[in-house]
Formats: sequence, C-alpha cells, structure tokens
Amino acid sequence: MSHFDVQLTQSPRPRPAENALGFGKHFADHMFVAEWTSQRGWHDARIVPYGPMSFDPAASVLHYGQAMFEGMKAFRGADGKVRLFRVERHSRRMAEGAPRLCMPPPDPEMMQQAITELVRIDSAWVPSSPGTALYIRPTLVASEAFLGVRPADHYTYFIITSPVGAYYEAGVKPVKIWVERSFVRAPQGGLGAVKASANYAASLLAAENARKAGYAQVLWLDAAEHKWLEEVGTMNLVLKIRGELVTPPLQGSILAGVTRDCVMTLARDWGMKVVERPISLDEVVAAHRDGSLEEVFGTGPGDRLVIHDGVIGETAKRLYDEITGIQYATRPDPHGWLTEV
Amino acid sequence: MSHFDVQLTQSPRPRPAENALGFGKHFADHMFVAEWTSQRGWHDARIVPYGPMSFDPAASVLHYGQAMFEGMKAFRGADGKVRLFRVERHSRRMAEGAPRLCMPPPDPEMMQQAITELVRIDSAWVPSSPGTALYIRPTLVASEAFLGVRPADHYTYFIITSPVGAYYEAGVKPVKIWVERSFVRAPQGGLGAVKASANYAASLLAAENARKAGYAQVLWLDAAEHKWLEEVGTMNLVLKIRGELVTPPLQGSILAGVTRDCVMTLARDWGMKVVERPISLDEVVAAHRDGSLEEVFGTGPGDRLVIHDGVIGETAKRLYDEITGIQYATRPDPHGWLTEV
Repeated sequence: MSHFDVQLTQSPRPRPAENALGFGKHFADHMFVAEWTSQRGWHDARIVPYGPMSFDPAASVLHYGQAMFEGMKAFRGADGKVRLFRVERHSRRMAEGAPRLCMPPPDPEMMQQAITELVRIDSAWVPSSPGTALYIRPTLVASEAFLGVRPADHYTYFIITSPVGAYYEAGVKPVKIWVERSFVRAPQGGLGAVKASANYAASLLAAENARKAGYAQVLWLDAAEHKWLEEVGTMNLVLKIRGELVTPPLQGSILAGVTRDCVMTLARDWGMKVVERPISLDEVVAAHRDGSLEEVFGTGPGDRLVIHDGVIGETAKRLYDEITGIQYATRPDPHGWLTEV
Repeated sequence: MSHFDVQLTQSPRPRPAENALGFGKHFADHMFVAEWTSQRGWHDARIVPYGPMSFDPAASVLHYGQAMFEGMKAFRGADGKVRLFRVERHSRRMAEGAPRLCMPPPDPEMMQQAITELVRIDSAWVPSSPGTALYIRPTLVASEAFLGVRPADHYTYFIITSPVGAYYEAGVKPVKIWVERSFVRAPQGGLGAVKASANYAASLLAAENARKAGYAQVLWLDAAEHKWLEEVGTMNLVLKIRGELVTPPLQGSILAGVTRDCVMTLARDWGMKVVERPISLDEVVAAHRDGSLEEVFGTGPGDRLVIHDGVIGETAKRLYDEITGIQYATRPDPHGWLTEV
C-alpha cells in the first residue's frame, strides 16, 4: 500500500545504456512532490510522472535563493537487491539545515517514506554495473509568488532520481588542485554548513577558472584569513599525517558530509586516530616537506579520492573499498547504513 | 513597431486600488521572456501574458542557485508621463554582475528595449498616487536540466512588473537597527557585489531574528573581523559626520547601489564632501558619543531613510526630496536619469 497518492506514467521512457550514464543527465520515470504552507503544513504529497514543474515568475526561489537539496544513492547489491545508503542521516541533515534558510524542515520520516516508495516504483532504473547507482535528489524550494525580502509562505519539496555512473569520469586517480586565495565559498556565519543552493552559486567561478587553468578542483580556504583548509571542490577534505587522519572541524562554514562521517567512523573502527581540528595551508606544506604528510583525499558525492604523490594512499584505498563494499552489499554493514527498498 | 514578438493578453486583470498596493503583491498583465544557450546566444525574446513558467525539476536554478535580478522603477510624473529611473545603470549593473555567477550577460540595450516596450504595453499599470511606482524586476536564472556542479548551458531571462506603494509601509521614520555580530551576508571574495539570489538567502535568518526581537533592520558587518560596516538590511549605508557624507567603499562584498550613486552624485553637486572609506562600528559609536555623528541613513529600493535621533536629518531629507522630485518630474533632471517611455 502506498503512503502517497501515486499516479504512474503512461509512457515509460527508454532507459540509457549503463556504460554511458554520466552524472545527472538522465532521470527516472517518476518524481515525488509535496507542498507546504504555514496554514496547512505539508500537504498534497504525491508521486507523479517526471515532468516540468510550474512556477509563478515571482516564485521566491527564482529571486531570493531559498533553496536547498540533498544527494544520496540507491545501490543494486551483488544479490540484485536495491538498498539506500544512509537515507536516515541525509534526511536528518536536510531537516536540520532548513531553518538556517528560514524554510520548514521536511519531516525525516516523510522523506524516507517518499524516497523508499519512489525508488521502489522506479526500481528498474537502479543500474547494476560496477560503480553505478541511482542518485536521489530531494530538493526544497520557496514557491510563493511575491517580491520582497522575507521568508516565503509556500514551499515545494520534490525528489527526482537519476541513474548515474561514477561522478568523476576519470575514476580514482590523482589530480591537480588549485589553492583559491581570492574567492570564498562560504564564511563563518554564512550558509556553508547547509546544502544550500547559494553555496554552489558562489563556488562556480573559481571552479571554472581552475578548470581553464588545468586544475581539477578548487581547495577552499577560510573567508577571514585565507589560511585554513575548508573543502576541496564540493568535498570534505581528509589528510593523513603521521598515521593520523585529520579533517577540518564543523564550525559553521563547511558541510557535515555523510561520506566524511563514514570515513571517520570506519577509520575509528579500525583503531586509527581521527582528529577534527583546524588545518592551515602552511601546516600541509610543511608536512609535505618533512615527509609526514602521507595522504590527502576528498570525501564527496562520488567518493572520489584525491591522491597524494600520484598513487592511491593505503588508507584512502582501504576506505574506498570498504565503503563501496558496504554500498554494494559485498561486505558487512555493522553500522546499519543500508536500508533495503 | 515592436522589437520583440508580442502576444497580448486576452483577459486583462482588474488593477488593485492605489491606496493598497503594498510591495510585490500584484503583477501587471505582461512579462518579457528570452532564452540563452551557448549555441544560439539570446533568442526567442518575446512579450507574453503574465503567467506560470515551466521548469524541469532538474533546472539548475532550483539546485545550484545561478540566479540574479535587478530592481528599478517607472514613475508617473506630475505631467502624467511615464518615465524609467536610471534604467541604463541598472541594465549595465546586471550585465556586469552576470559573469561572477558564470551567467551570460544580458545585453544592456536589449534589456532597456525590453523594459521600455513592456512598460509601454502595461502603462495603465503605472500608478499615479504619491509614493507609488511600477516596480520592474528583470531576473536571470539557469534553466538547463542537469544535476552536477557546473555553470548551466541554458538560461532564461524574464522581466515582470508590479505596481507598488512605498517599499516600507511606515514611510520615512526612525527605526531600531540590530547590529549583527554572528551571521554574515557576504564575505570578500563572495557574491556580495552582485545582486545574486544567494546573498538574500544568506540574509533571511538574521533579519527574521532581528524582526522578532523588535528591530526593523540588520546592520551587517564584514565577514573577517565583524568590525566594519557593510550594509543595512538590503540597503547601502551613509553617515554624515562633521558635515561630510561617508559610506563604505565598494570592495567586493557590498552592492554598488543605484540610490547610493544618486546620493553621492547629488551631495557632490551641492558642494558637500563625500568619502568612500571603511567605517568601523567603533568609529560610529565614538562619533555618536562626541556629537560629531549628524545623520545615519540607508539607501535602497524604497529610498527609505533611517534617521538619527528620531528626526529626519537635514541632508537625508534634502536628498529624499530631490530624488523623489526628479523621479516624479517635479524637479529638473540634470544628470539624465529619466527615460521617457
């Protein structure tokens, strides 16, 4: 039995070949949509055929940027079953982040039910080739039609899904990183800790400049001193120094990445020391010089690892294998990160 | 003769009473829309009946915040004629700001033609009561359907108009200002110099907190030191200290306000000294203590002035009268700020 009104498509679309999925180019047959107003709360939750949405040209999201999203995946395991990875944590993160943008938090339970139901309906869209998954994009936008700077009174929450290959086509390999010393992704006191559209808008130009100069990613530094490591591209950053994993602390300007949490949890399981503390660029340079910098990697939507000295680091490799092993159900899931659909 | 395809509405809507317009609640009968792709550049420019726009749920604006806008006004003069105020400067600002968001700059000439044509068609919507105007909102959003952090390849540019009363209903009067020491609107290296949706998203919570605590506006300080004055609410800030006007300089984190420019230009016309330089909160407090702080006011979309010591300052009053006099064509327009429609 369904928890929501469900209207199935009458014209299912052909599915793309699994060896040419790319990222975020193809979309499954259905989407979830719900509305919120201050008077009615959440209402009109429904699953409908994927298709255009109608917005008034004065819809607040088009003007004042009240928009945030999540990104998670469903994997088809080695046993053919479909499982969501850390759906509970992603749902909670969205609910916790919404108030920073003055938006109503989507109830995490509604979100999990919606995702489960949607992925079940479109389960044929979950690919099975190695490295592939069904990417799930819950999105919350302000849809009230008015001009004027204030929180909206009407929000639209929707979830779309996309069969994807690896986020970064090149796979696991070393890349050149641009250290950004002018542009800022997000300051303390800004939106950096929330998966807000605004953060991505702010990051685009630096990434484009870096790309044109031959660099794969931007290393973001803090807004106040341009001295402390923040994120790399859209990923959290982890260093291995003298056998310890260190990563910048969650102090308001960086996102509490779910892969970041996976990495810290697994490394601690293995008895490694994991420290969240400010890391200066100077320290990284010095550690590289004296040989104590053993690995540098990013943790993000595609689990792509940035590798030190042109070879994948031992810990990065072990983490990558463990996380993907859990995701595809070829290894045990001791922390209960998977939810069978 | 029209420069664009024009499709007039078959069902014009009743116009709201001029004494109850509010701000951004009512919209005129038509809107301008144009599309941009890397292959075709700007195309499909048209004026059509105001109504819902269709976006793919993966449209980039809903996810990654590539969105910016302008805000300007058309006034019905004392002679009954309709005039745009500083349309050229607003158009140029939008074109100059777009590249910071990796968006294609709308050609300022196209923008002026579109605005002129649109306001001409909906000229009956330009109200004539004192303090009223037709607010014009050009908006540029990324409309390509994809997931992934990169600039979009398809943009939609649209212009809507709204008959408005005074932006701030209370009119010209003193208000309480909240000095914000935690939240940041925009850092150096961020998007603060551009009229980007992202800046408004970042500002909402602080404004809500201030409002709930009984304050009318937020005084934004710089991101690095929380020490230097930036903006007040969504307005630029001007102080009169010992007979001189001082205002924070355009160093990347604040918007080059058009009213700010009007104020500086007129004050210089009158032989006043106008200085753009960093102003610390400490300096303001000290100047207030020793009596040298003569006026404090904001310059923004509604030309609302924040007044020192509960009475409107002499210079603020003179500027307000002069600017509104030019806008309603009851005073001369020596700088050519008006464009007759």
